[in-house]
Amino acid sequence: MRERPVREKAAAWLYGRHAVEAALANPARRCRRLIALRETAPEAEALLRRARARPPRAGVEVVERRTLEALLPHGAVHQGLALAAEPLPAGDLEAILDADATPGAPQIVVALDQVTDPHNVGAILRSAAAFGALAVIVPEHGAPAVTGALAKAASGALEEVPLLRVANLARALEKLKEAGFWSLGLDEHADRTIAALDLPDRVVLVLGAEGSGLRRLTREHCDFLARLPTRSAMASLNVSNAAAVALYALTRRPAR
Amino acid sequence: MRERPVREKAAAWLYGRHAVEAALANPARRCRRLIALRETAPEAEALLRRARARPPRAGVEVVERRTLEALLPHGAVHQGLALAAEPLPAGDLEAILDADATPGAPQIVVALDQVTDPHNVGAILRSAAAFGALAVIVPEHGAPAVTGALAKAASGALEEVPLLRVANLARALEKLKEAGFWSLGLDEHADRTIAALDLPDRVVLVLGAEGSGLRRLTREHCDFLARLPTRSAMASLNVSNAAAVALYALTRRPAR
Repeated sequence: MRERPVREKAAAWLYGRHAVEAALANPARRCRRLIALRETAPEAEALLRRARARPPRAGVEVVERRTLEALLPHGAVHQGLALAAEPLPAGDLEAILDADATPGAPQIVVALDQVTDPHNVGAILRSAAAFGALAVIVPEHGAPAVTGALAKAASGALEEVPLLRVANLARALEKLKEAGFWSLGLDEHADRTIAALDLPDRVVLVLGAEGSGLRRLTREHCDFLARLPTRSAMASLNVSNAAAVALYALTRRPAR
Repeated sequence: MRERPVREKAAAWLYGRHAVEAALANPARRCRRLIALRETAPEAEALLRRARARPPRAGVEVVERRTLEALLPHGAVHQGLALAAEPLPAGDLEAILDADATPGAPQIVVALDQVTDPHNVGAILRSAAAFGALAVIVPEHGAPAVTGALAKAASGALEEVPLLRVANLARALEKLKEAGFWSLGLDEHADRTIAALDLPDRVVLVLGAEGSGLRRLTREHCDFLARLPTRSAMASLNVSNAAAVALYALTRRPAR
């Protein structure tokens, strides 16, 4: 079949059931193409009927497996579904700052400093959605592009939790501080564990790259540093696992 | 340069700094070849001097990047180091059962039912090491082979925490039960959250495949079912994230 051109700059191929379903359910999405295999076509048609996104003009395109796989990265676990969608509108830090604070209810923002693996950023978005975080903030440079791999790892959470790209992470932490958010940097060498801290309701959880950890400038903008209660011999968790544990710990705090 | 033959059946290529360093430090390892690039050769030599594993006869082999990459899976993040090592001796469930129990100190075993992604199993081994779990148990069928990708994700924990393959997971849970281990299945539809349970010291944390969850037979062998306190709209975490959060929750229990 003839391939319709997709403007590469403007659309990304999302794939996998959860990522495609969530994007089609998101009114903020404009979709260009929805591709299925013969066996997944009924599922794709059903998703399209329920779609709240702007649907692709051509409806569901049914292709051979090799045609689908040629559009996606090598080895992509596509589950027979791929969606070319325009990027979401850039999120707005101000909207997060203005979120109503219910006293006693934690409000958490996640900031990632040089977490470059798209699978990790995707999994962190997924955990952020699961634990009700307001947003995930990444620097414009030193964060992965929103690819299908990131969206697949996020398993739909990309549509749920704003992924904000900021020019300067330290400045974003400053802005958040003015709005009452205290920054908690996760640092395996910190003296105190996360559960030992008496934290305010509004917290920015700051995570750095595995290995090198938080950069000096980022660390200096943290009000608290804490570690997870891991054994010293094998201190570090994968960064997405560390984020999930920290989000659990922060949302389990007793009400103040 | 001429490639020395490696018996494919018996040795696996491990790669990445942490995985290679930990394998060389493990007296139970027999190593066949250690490969480095010109720029990582000094590091490889230093690791070899400290090695407690049986070292490769040829010492450090310095090769071109393309020679190294031809030995490893496409896209492997090798950090300039690769080690061909024989598999570890098969672990023994009995040794776990006989571990001394200190009253009040949790002893945790992780059992994975059909978790097939090697990155997830590797990350779970890493979290198991970080939180001091005794072992990770997987069924002989329905678990990934111990590949370089699994070892890389485990970041050295493969040398630290026994990865036990059992013919029958349900029977292994029975044996563990006889030794005083209660089985806790993680299930997003359970009524109670993990923190709400009053658990004994010895716990087997049982995790199923993402999506389909625990299989019926495995679920029937669980003494408790619990969920993580996630929002219902986006209930599920990536399985390695769920494991990390559960291990944190289990090791943070107040002493009984």
